[in-house]
Amino acid sequence: MAWDTERTRRLLLEAAVEEFAEHGPEGARVDRVAARAGVNKERIYQYFGGKRQLFTAVLEAELAKVAAAVPLTADEIADLGEYAGRVFDYHCEHPHFLRLLAWEGLQGGPAAAEGERAAHYADKLAAFADARKKGAITGDIEPAHLLYAVHALATWWFTMPQVAHMMLAGAPDDSPASRRAGLVRMVRRLTS
Amino acid sequence: MAWDTERTRRLLLEAAVEEFAEHGPEGARVDRVAARAGVNKERIYQYFGGKRQLFTAVLEAELAKVAAAVPLTADEIADLGEYAGRVFDYHCEHPHFLRLLAWEGLQGGPAAAEGERAAHYADKLAAFADARKKGAITGDIEPAHLLYAVHALATWWFTMPQVAHMMLAGAPDDSPASRRAGLVRMVRRLTS
Repeated sequence: MAWDTERTRRLLLEAAVEEFAEHGPEGARVDRVAARAGVNKERIYQYFGGKRQLFTAVLEAELAKVAAAVPLTADEIADLGEYAGRVFDYHCEHPHFLRLLAWEGLQGGPAAAEGERAAHYADKLAAFADARKKGAITGDIEPAHLLYAVHALATWWFTMPQVAHMMLAGAPDDSPASRRAGLVRMVRRLTS
Repeated sequence: MAWDTERTRRLLLEAAVEEFAEHGPEGARVDRVAARAGVNKERIYQYFGGKRQLFTAVLEAELAKVAAAVPLTADEIADLGEYAGRVFDYHCEHPHFLRLLAWEGLQGGPAAAEGERAAHYADKLAAFADARKKGAITGDIEPAHLLYAVHALATWWFTMPQVAHMMLAGAPDDSPASRRAGLVRMVRRLTS
């Protein structure tokens, strides 16, 4: 068989990340994804089932990349501020990912791959609870709220870029380095 | 003249809030806004100029409502945690507003009414700086980052609802009251 299935799937996923990040799950068009990938549009239906399933596959692939790039183990939990800084760094380098999540949020309805993602966060929460028991996290903020705060503070610059820009226009320094330093300081404050 | 201009403008703005919150500035359709308002579509072009200007007018009207409903004076700054709680309450009651901001952020480009909004945030920053001078805010978080944190922590539940839901699924209590209490506690921690 001339088709290299894995390669075709990968090309389609890469093209779909761009298309969905730009236009969202509603506005995205499978013919543009196929054209960008240089693949016949029928392959999308064959391999993924349709546009909705392609969006889910894109999110799953991108979530796996973030989880691998910014792991949260006991070492990271010991300095949650620096962990938040690494989450920030990741999004600086991969701006499309939070656009995908923003589109998903606006669309409403259940999240793609909700079971796996909820399990992923449950693992993080268990690690937080363990760290608190061992004294690696102090303070009285509930672990689930701490997890929320790390992500809210690390990502809001990217998900509300226009508001963050106007808000920070009056700051003495609004470079990425200054945003990162402020983020690390704030998260450390919350865990001490 | 039979037309009651102010009333027509108001009807169009109210209908436009719903339409833009639901579909965003790209997906919104002026004929649906006109139909919802029970007004001839030509009035939109006559009063606002077009869809883009209507979106700007909607944002300006909604921003004025938030600013009036959740003012930030020296009294509020003295307990910034409770102020964040009030911002949270406002968004619980007016879920369309953050959807408008999320769409605006995804659209890219300069923000609607950028000058006025930047001036609004500059006023808040000046009030923060003043509060710090008078000792009403302590801690070493820069005022611009504190302003950012208040809004990021108060609003991320609404702008990333599906992620917050999965993250908080493992919390002992994920009621709005519990989210609000956690938010107030976190912001107080940042300012002490």
